[in-house]
Amino acid sequence: MTGFPSSMKSLIDELSKMPGIGPKSAQRLAFYILRSSGNDAEVLSKAILKVKNSVRFCKSCNNLSDEEFCEICKSTLRNRSLLCVVEEPNDVATIEKAGEYEGLYHVLLGSLSPLDGIGPSDLKIEELLVRVKRDKYKEIIIATDFNTEGEATAMYLGKVLKGSGSRLTRVAYGIPVGGDLQYADQATIVKAFEGRREVK
Amino acid sequence: MTGFPSSMKSLIDELSKMPGIGPKSAQRLAFYILRSSGNDAEVLSKAILKVKNSVRFCKSCNNLSDEEFCEICKSTLRNRSLLCVVEEPNDVATIEKAGEYEGLYHVLLGSLSPLDGIGPSDLKIEELLVRVKRDKYKEIIIATDFNTEGEATAMYLGKVLKGSGSRLTRVAYGIPVGGDLQYADQATIVKAFEGRREVK
Repeated sequence: MTGFPSSMKSLIDELSKMPGIGPKSAQRLAFYILRSSGNDAEVLSKAILKVKNSVRFCKSCNNLSDEEFCEICKSTLRNRSLLCVVEEPNDVATIEKAGEYEGLYHVLLGSLSPLDGIGPSDLKIEELLVRVKRDKYKEIIIATDFNTEGEATAMYLGKVLKGSGSRLTRVAYGIPVGGDLQYADQATIVKAFEGRREVK
Repeated sequence: MTGFPSSMKSLIDELSKMPGIGPKSAQRLAFYILRSSGNDAEVLSKAILKVKNSVRFCKSCNNLSDEEFCEICKSTLRNRSLLCVVEEPNDVATIEKAGEYEGLYHVLLGSLSPLDGIGPSDLKIEELLVRVKRDKYKEIIIATDFNTEGEATAMYLGKVLKGSGSRLTRVAYGIPVGGDLQYADQATIVKAFEGRREVK
Protein backbone atom coordinates (compact mmCIF):
# COMPACT_ATOMS: atom_id res chain seq x y z
CA MET A 1 0.00 0.00 0.00
CA THR A 2 2.67 2.48 -0.99
CA GLY A 3 1.53 5.81 -2.31
CA PHE A 4 -0.50 6.53 0.84
CA PRO A 5 0.81 8.51 3.77
CA SER A 6 1.37 6.38 6.87
CA SER A 7 -1.64 7.75 8.73
CA MET A 8 -3.90 6.66 5.86
CA LYS A 9 -2.23 3.24 5.80
CA SER A 10 -2.86 2.82 9.54
CA LEU A 11 -6.51 3.79 9.20
CA ILE A 12 -6.98 1.42 6.25
CA ASP A 13 -5.31 -1.36 8.26
CA GLU A 14 -7.57 -0.77 11.26
CA LEU A 15 -10.72 -0.63 9.11
CA SER A 16 -9.71 -3.84 7.30
CA LYS A 17 -9.78 -5.70 10.61
CA MET A 18 -13.55 -5.26 10.80
CA PRO A 19 -15.83 -8.09 9.63
CA GLY A 20 -16.91 -7.87 6.00
CA ILE A 21 -14.53 -5.01 5.26
CA GLY A 22 -11.93 -5.96 2.65
CA PRO A 23 -8.96 -3.80 1.64
CA LYS A 24 -10.95 -2.00 -1.10
CA SER A 25 -13.86 -1.16 1.20
CA ALA A 26 -11.41 -0.06 3.88
CA GLN A 27 -9.76 2.27 1.37
CA ARG A 28 -13.15 3.70 0.36
CA LEU A 29 -14.12 4.24 4.00
CA ALA A 30 -10.76 5.86 4.77
CA PHE A 31 -11.28 8.29 1.88
CA TYR A 32 -14.78 9.00 3.14
CA ILE A 33 -13.38 9.80 6.58
CA LEU A 34 -10.61 11.92 5.07
CA ARG A 35 -13.11 13.95 3.06
CA SER A 36 -15.83 14.23 5.69
CA SER A 37 -16.06 17.40 7.73
CA GLY A 38 -13.66 17.43 10.68
CA ASN A 39 -16.63 17.29 13.01
CA ASP A 40 -18.07 14.08 11.50
CA ALA A 41 -14.78 12.25 11.94
CA GLU A 42 -14.52 13.44 15.51
CA VAL A 43 -18.07 12.34 16.30
CA LEU A 44 -17.32 8.87 14.87
CA SER A 45 -14.05 8.65 16.74
CA LYS A 46 -15.76 9.59 20.00
CA ALA A 47 -18.69 7.24 19.41
CA ILE A 48 -16.24 4.33 19.14
CA LEU A 49 -14.61 5.17 22.46
CA LYS A 50 -17.96 5.86 24.13
CA VAL A 51 -19.25 2.40 23.26
CA LYS A 52 -16.14 0.76 24.62
CA ASN A 53 -16.22 2.77 27.81
CA SER A 54 -19.90 2.93 28.64
CA VAL A 55 -21.64 -0.17 27.30
CA ARG A 56 -21.96 -3.09 29.68
CA PHE A 57 -24.37 -5.95 30.26
CA CYS A 58 -27.63 -5.28 32.09
CA LYS A 59 -27.38 -6.72 35.60
CA SER A 60 -30.75 -8.35 35.26
CA CYS A 61 -31.10 -9.65 31.68
CA ASN A 62 -27.55 -9.31 30.17
CA ASN A 63 -28.80 -7.11 27.36
CA LEU A 64 -26.48 -4.26 26.41
CA SER A 65 -26.91 -1.17 28.53
CA ASP A 66 -25.32 2.19 29.27
CA GLU A 67 -26.43 1.84 32.89
CA GLU A 68 -26.72 -0.85 35.55
CA PHE A 69 -30.10 -1.99 34.20
CA CYS A 70 -31.16 -1.77 30.56
CA GLU A 71 -34.04 0.34 29.22
CA ILE A 72 -36.32 -2.66 28.86
CA CYS A 73 -35.78 -3.95 32.40
CA LYS A 74 -36.32 -0.43 33.76
CA SER A 75 -39.42 0.26 31.68
CA THR A 76 -42.78 0.37 33.46
CA LEU A 77 -44.60 -0.36 30.20
CA ARG A 78 -43.44 -3.97 29.76
CA ASN A 79 -45.43 -7.06 30.67
CA ARG A 80 -43.43 -8.50 33.56
CA SER A 81 -45.10 -11.89 33.44
CA LEU A 82 -43.51 -12.74 30.06
CA LEU A 83 -39.86 -13.69 29.61
CA CYS A 84 -38.20 -14.25 26.23
CA VAL A 85 -34.87 -16.12 26.25
CA VAL A 86 -32.45 -15.26 23.42
CA GLU A 87 -28.81 -15.97 22.65
CA GLU A 88 -27.38 -12.52 21.97
CA PRO A 89 -28.13 -8.83 22.57
CA ASN A 90 -28.77 -8.24 18.86
CA ASP A 91 -31.56 -10.81 19.02
CA VAL A 92 -33.24 -8.44 21.47
CA ALA A 93 -32.84 -5.61 18.97
CA THR A 94 -34.29 -7.76 16.17
CA ILE A 95 -37.35 -8.73 18.20
CA GLU A 96 -37.87 -5.16 19.44
CA LYS A 97 -37.77 -3.90 15.88
CA ALA A 98 -40.69 -6.20 15.02
CA GLY A 99 -42.60 -4.25 17.69
CA GLU A 100 -44.93 -7.07 18.78
CA TYR A 101 -43.43 -8.55 21.94
CA GLU A 102 -43.92 -6.56 25.12
CA GLY A 103 -42.45 -8.78 27.84
CA LEU A 104 -38.95 -8.94 29.33
CA TYR A 105 -35.84 -10.68 28.01
CA HIS A 106 -33.06 -12.91 29.24
CA VAL A 107 -29.90 -12.93 27.12
CA LEU A 108 -27.82 -16.11 27.47
CA LEU A 109 -24.75 -14.54 25.83
CA GLY A 110 -24.19 -17.58 23.64
CA SER A 111 -25.51 -21.06 22.93
CA LEU A 112 -24.55 -24.57 23.95
CA SER A 113 -21.81 -25.95 21.74
CA PRO A 114 -20.06 -28.99 23.16
CA LEU A 115 -17.68 -29.12 20.18
CA ASP A 116 -16.41 -25.64 21.06
CA GLY A 117 -16.35 -26.54 24.75
CA ILE A 118 -19.29 -24.26 25.57
CA GLY A 119 -21.44 -25.84 28.27
CA PRO A 120 -24.33 -24.56 30.43
CA SER A 121 -21.99 -22.94 32.94
CA ASP A 122 -20.54 -20.72 30.18
CA LEU A 123 -23.98 -19.23 29.50
CA LYS A 124 -26.21 -17.12 31.75
CA ILE A 125 -28.40 -20.12 32.57
CA GLU A 126 -27.84 -20.14 36.33
CA GLU A 127 -28.95 -16.49 36.38
CA LEU A 128 -32.03 -17.43 34.33
CA LEU A 129 -33.03 -20.11 36.83
CA VAL A 130 -32.66 -17.63 39.70
CA ARG A 131 -34.86 -15.09 37.89
CA VAL A 132 -37.49 -17.68 37.02
CA LYS A 133 -37.65 -18.97 40.60
CA ARG A 134 -37.88 -15.45 42.04
CA ASP A 135 -40.20 -13.77 39.53
CA LYS A 136 -42.61 -16.60 38.64
CA TYR A 137 -43.23 -15.76 34.95
CA LYS A 138 -46.53 -16.78 33.42
CA GLU A 139 -44.77 -17.78 30.23
CA ILE A 140 -41.17 -18.29 29.14
CA ILE A 141 -40.65 -18.05 25.38
CA ILE A 142 -37.49 -19.70 24.12
CA ALA A 143 -36.21 -17.81 21.06
CA THR A 144 -32.74 -19.24 20.59
CA ASP A 145 -31.54 -19.66 16.99
CA PHE A 146 -32.88 -22.46 14.81
CA ASN A 147 -29.48 -24.01 14.16
CA THR A 148 -27.89 -27.01 15.91
CA GLU A 149 -26.54 -25.00 18.85
CA GLY A 150 -29.73 -22.99 19.29
CA GLU A 151 -31.87 -26.13 19.21
CA ALA A 152 -29.62 -27.90 21.70
CA THR A 153 -29.85 -24.88 23.97
CA ALA A 154 -33.65 -24.81 23.64
CA MET A 155 -33.84 -28.50 24.53
CA TYR A 156 -31.59 -28.03 27.53
CA LEU A 157 -33.66 -25.05 28.73
CA GLY A 158 -36.83 -27.10 28.30
CA LYS A 159 -35.37 -29.72 30.62
CA VAL A 160 -34.10 -27.41 33.38
CA LEU A 161 -37.16 -25.14 33.31
CA LYS A 162 -39.67 -27.98 33.44
CA GLY A 163 -41.50 -27.81 36.75
CA SER A 164 -40.77 -24.11 37.14
CA GLY A 165 -44.52 -23.45 37.05
CA SER A 166 -44.15 -21.24 33.95
CA ARG A 167 -45.69 -22.13 30.60
CA LEU A 168 -42.75 -22.99 28.32
CA THR A 169 -42.96 -22.17 24.60
CA ARG A 170 -40.67 -22.09 21.57
CA VAL A 171 -41.20 -19.57 18.76
CA ALA A 172 -42.59 -21.30 15.67
CA TYR A 173 -40.71 -22.79 12.78
CA GLY A 174 -42.20 -22.03 9.38
CA ILE A 175 -42.03 -20.33 6.04
CA PRO A 176 -40.93 -16.68 6.35
CA VAL A 177 -43.57 -14.05 5.64
CA GLY A 178 -43.34 -13.12 1.98
CA GLY A 179 -41.36 -16.30 1.35
CA ASP A 180 -42.01 -18.53 -1.62
CA LEU A 181 -42.84 -22.11 -0.74
CA GLN A 182 -40.74 -23.31 -3.66
CA TYR A 183 -37.59 -21.74 -2.23
CA ALA A 184 -38.04 -23.10 1.29
CA ASP A 185 -35.74 -25.98 2.24
CA GLN A 186 -37.27 -29.37 2.96
CA ALA A 187 -36.61 -29.34 6.69
CA THR A 188 -38.44 -26.01 6.98
CA ILE A 189 -41.38 -27.36 4.98
CA VAL A 190 -41.61 -30.42 7.23
CA LYS A 191 -41.58 -28.16 10.31
CA ALA A 192 -44.11 -25.79 8.75
CA PHE A 193 -46.49 -28.70 8.16
CA GLU A 194 -45.97 -30.04 11.67
CA GLY A 195 -46.73 -26.60 13.10
CA ARG A 196 -49.86 -26.03 10.99
CA ARG A 197 -52.75 -24.34 12.70
CA GLU A 198 -56.52 -24.19 12.44
CA VAL A 199 -57.76 -21.68 9.86
CA LYS A 200 -60.53 -19.66 11.50
CA MET B 1 -33.61 0.70 17.06
CA THR B 2 -34.93 0.16 20.56
CA GLY B 3 -33.27 -2.48 22.62
CA PHE B 4 -29.83 -0.88 22.20
CA PRO B 5 -28.27 1.51 24.69
CA SER B 6 -27.97 5.07 23.38
CA SER B 7 -24.19 4.90 22.91
CA MET B 8 -24.62 1.86 20.62
CA LYS B 9 -27.37 3.68 18.71
CA SER B 10 -25.08 6.69 18.16
CA LEU B 11 -22.23 4.50 16.93
CA ILE B 12 -24.55 2.61 14.57
CA ASP B 13 -25.88 5.96 13.27
CA GLU B 14 -22.37 7.26 12.63
CA LEU B 15 -21.24 4.07 10.92
CA SER B 16 -24.37 4.07 8.72
CA LYS B 17 -23.31 7.41 7.26
CA MET B 18 -20.33 5.78 5.56
CA PRO B 19 -20.59 4.75 1.90
CA GLY B 20 -21.74 1.18 1.33
CA ILE B 21 -22.57 0.65 5.00
CA GLY B 22 -26.27 -0.06 5.53
CA PRO B 23 -27.99 -0.35 8.92
CA LYS B 24 -27.27 -4.10 9.18
CA SER B 25 -23.57 -3.73 8.40
CA ALA B 26 -23.37 -0.80 10.79
CA GLN B 27 -24.87 -2.96 13.52
CA ARG B 28 -22.39 -5.75 12.81
CA LEU B 29 -19.46 -3.32 12.88
CA ALA B 30 -20.71 -1.75 16.11
CA PHE B 31 -20.82 -5.19 17.72
CA TYR B 32 -17.33 -5.91 16.44
CA ILE B 33 -16.09 -2.68 18.02
CA LEU B 34 -17.92 -3.44 21.25
CA ARG B 35 -16.33 -6.88 21.48
CA SER B 36 -12.86 -5.95 20.33
CA SER B 37 -10.20 -5.41 22.92
CA GLY B 38 -10.29 -1.90 24.39
CA ASN B 39 -6.97 -1.21 22.75
CA ASP B 40 -8.19 -2.04 19.22
CA ALA B 41 -11.10 0.37 19.52
CA GLU B 42 -8.81 3.08 20.80
CA VAL B 43 -6.35 2.54 17.95
CA LEU B 44 -9.20 2.81 15.42
CA SER B 45 -10.59 5.91 17.11
CA LYS B 46 -7.16 7.56 17.08
CA ALA B 47 -6.43 6.52 13.49
CA ILE B 48 -9.60 8.36 12.40
CA LEU B 49 -8.56 11.57 14.12
CA LYS B 50 -4.95 11.25 12.93
CA VAL B 51 -6.02 11.07 9.29
CA LYS B 52 -8.21 14.14 9.68
CA ASN B 53 -5.50 16.09 11.44
CA SER B 54 -2.34 15.10 9.64
CA VAL B 55 -3.16 14.24 6.03
CA ARG B 56 -2.77 17.03 3.48
CA PHE B 57 -1.86 17.34 -0.18
CA CYS B 58 1.77 17.11 -1.27
CA LYS B 59 3.01 20.59 -2.19
CA SER B 60 4.57 19.27 -5.36
CA CYS B 61 2.26 16.59 -6.80
CA ASN B 62 -0.99 16.91 -4.74
CA ASN B 63 -0.82 13.30 -3.63
CA LEU B 64 -1.88 12.66 -0.03
CA SER B 65 0.91 13.18 2.46
CA ASP B 66 1.58 13.41 6.18
CA GLU B 67 4.29 15.99 5.48
CA GLU B 68 4.91 18.92 3.13
CA PHE B 69 6.09 16.63 0.34
CA CYS B 70 4.88 13.05 -0.19
CA GLU B 71 7.02 9.92 0.04
CA ILE B 72 7.21 9.54 -3.71
CA CYS B 73 8.32 13.12 -4.38
CA LYS B 74 10.93 12.83 -1.60
CA SER B 75 12.21 9.43 -2.71
CA THR B 76 15.67 9.27 -4.30
CA LEU B 77 14.77 5.97 -5.99
CA ARG B 78 12.24 7.33 -8.48
CA ASN B 79 12.93 8.14 -12.11
CA ARG B 80 12.60 11.93 -12.19
CA SER B 81 12.35 12.15 -15.94
CA LEU B 82 8.92 10.43 -15.98
CA LEU B 83 5.70 12.09 -14.89
CA CYS B 84 2.37 10.30 -14.63
CA VAL B 85 -0.76 12.49 -14.48
CA VAL B 86 -3.74 11.03 -12.61
CA GLU B 87 -7.07 12.34 -11.37
CA GLU B 88 -7.08 11.33 -7.72
CA PRO B 89 -4.71 10.29 -4.91
CA ASN B 90 -6.14 6.76 -4.87
CA ASP B 91 -5.11 6.40 -8.52
CA VAL B 92 -1.53 6.85 -7.30
CA ALA B 93 -2.06 4.08 -4.75
CA THR B 94 -3.53 1.80 -7.43
CA ILE B 95 -0.60 2.31 -9.79
CA GLU B 96 1.94 1.93 -6.99
CA LYS B 97 0.36 -1.35 -5.98
CA ALA B 98 0.94 -2.71 -9.49
CA GLY B 99 4.64 -2.06 -8.83
CA GLU B 100 5.65 -1.34 -12.43
CA TYR B 101 5.89 2.43 -12.73
CA GLU B 102 8.86 4.15 -11.13
CA GLY B 103 8.51 7.80 -12.11
CA LEU B 104 6.80 10.73 -10.39
CA TYR B 105 3.11 11.69 -10.31
CA HIS B 106 0.96 14.72 -10.72
CA VAL B 107 -2.52 14.49 -9.19
CA LEU B 108 -5.10 16.78 -10.81
CA LEU B 109 -7.58 16.37 -7.95
CA GLY B 110 -10.44 15.82 -10.37
CA SER B 111 -11.28 15.73 -14.06
CA LEU B 112 -12.83 18.15 -16.53
CA SER B 113 -16.60 18.05 -16.39
CA PRO B 114 -18.30 21.01 -18.05
CA LEU B 115 -21.73 19.71 -17.05
CA ASP B 116 -20.73 19.94 -13.39
CA GLY B 117 -19.04 23.28 -13.99
CA ILE B 118 -15.56 21.84 -13.50
CA GLY B 119 -13.12 23.54 -15.86
CA PRO B 120 -9.31 23.53 -16.17
CA SER B 121 -8.91 26.19 -13.48
CA ASP B 122 -10.61 23.90 -10.94
CA LEU B 123 -7.94 21.24 -11.44
CA LYS B 124 -4.22 21.35 -10.68
CA ILE B 125 -3.38 21.95 -14.36
CA GLU B 126 -1.66 25.32 -13.94
CA GLU B 127 0.64 23.66 -11.38
CA LEU B 128 1.29 20.84 -13.85
CA LEU B 129 2.34 23.28 -16.57
CA VAL B 130 4.72 25.00 -14.14
CA ARG B 131 6.29 21.67 -13.18
CA VAL B 132 6.63 20.56 -16.78
CA LYS B 133 8.27 23.81 -17.82
CA ARG B 134 10.67 23.76 -14.88
CA ASP B 135 11.57 20.05 -14.73
CA LYS B 136 11.65 19.11 -18.45
CA TYR B 137 10.32 15.55 -18.17
CA LYS B 138 11.40 13.10 -20.84
CA GLU B 139 7.92 11.63 -20.88
CA ILE B 140 4.52 12.60 -19.49
CA ILE B 141 2.11 9.68 -19.14
CA ILE B 142 -1.53 10.67 -18.99
CA ALA B 143 -3.41 8.15 -16.82
CA THR B 144 -6.74 9.85 -16.25
CA ASP B 145 -9.80 7.57 -16.11
CA PHE B 146 -11.20 6.04 -19.32
CA ASN B 147 -14.64 7.57 -18.95
CA THR B 148 -15.97 10.73 -20.61
CA GLU B 149 -14.47 13.16 -18.09
CA GLY B 150 -11.13 11.36 -18.00
CA GLU B 151 -10.87 11.28 -21.79
CA ALA B 152 -11.82 14.94 -22.07
CA THR B 153 -9.14 15.74 -19.51
CA ALA B 154 -6.57 13.66 -21.42
CA MET B 155 -7.44 15.47 -24.66
CA TYR B 156 -7.18 18.84 -22.98
CA LEU B 157 -3.81 17.92 -21.46
CA GLY B 158 -2.63 16.72 -24.88
CA LYS B 159 -3.41 20.16 -26.26
CA VAL B 160 -1.82 22.28 -23.53
CA LEU B 161 1.25 20.07 -23.17
CA LYS B 162 1.99 19.88 -26.88
CA GLY B 163 5.25 21.68 -27.57
CA SER B 164 6.43 21.17 -23.97
CA GLY B 165 9.34 19.14 -25.32
CA SER B 166 8.21 16.06 -23.37
CA ARG B 167 7.06 12.89 -25.06
CA LEU B 168 3.30 12.70 -24.36
CA THR B 169 1.66 9.31 -23.87
CA ARG B 170 -1.66 7.92 -22.73
CA VAL B 171 -1.81 4.58 -20.90
CA ALA B 172 -3.21 1.94 -23.23
CA TYR B 173 -6.59 0.41 -23.48
CA GLY B 174 -6.48 -2.83 -21.67
CA ILE B 175 -8.35 -1.05 -18.97
CA PRO B 176 -12.00 -1.60 -19.94
CA VAL B 177 -13.67 1.34 -21.69
CA GLY B 178 -15.84 3.24 -19.25
CA GLY B 179 -13.96 1.77 -16.31
CA ASP B 180 -12.55 3.54 -13.27
CA LEU B 181 -8.79 3.23 -12.95
CA GLN B 182 -9.00 2.44 -9.25
CA TYR B 183 -10.97 -0.75 -9.87
CA ALA B 184 -8.57 -2.19 -12.44
CA ASP B 185 -6.61 -5.30 -11.51
CA GLN B 186 -2.83 -5.17 -11.28
CA ALA B 187 -2.06 -7.21 -14.40
CA THR B 188 -4.28 -4.95 -16.49
CA ILE B 189 -2.50 -1.91 -15.11
CA VAL B 190 0.88 -3.36 -16.03
CA LYS B 191 -0.37 -4.08 -19.59
CA ALA B 192 -1.80 -0.61 -19.85
CA PHE B 193 1.54 0.93 -18.93
CA GLU B 194 3.47 -1.28 -21.34
CA GLY B 195 1.13 -0.40 -24.21
CA ARG B 196 1.13 3.35 -23.74
CA ARG B 197 1.10 5.36 -26.99
CA GLU B 198 1.99 8.83 -28.30
CA VAL B 199 -0.64 11.52 -27.85
CA LYS B 200 -1.04 13.22 -31.24
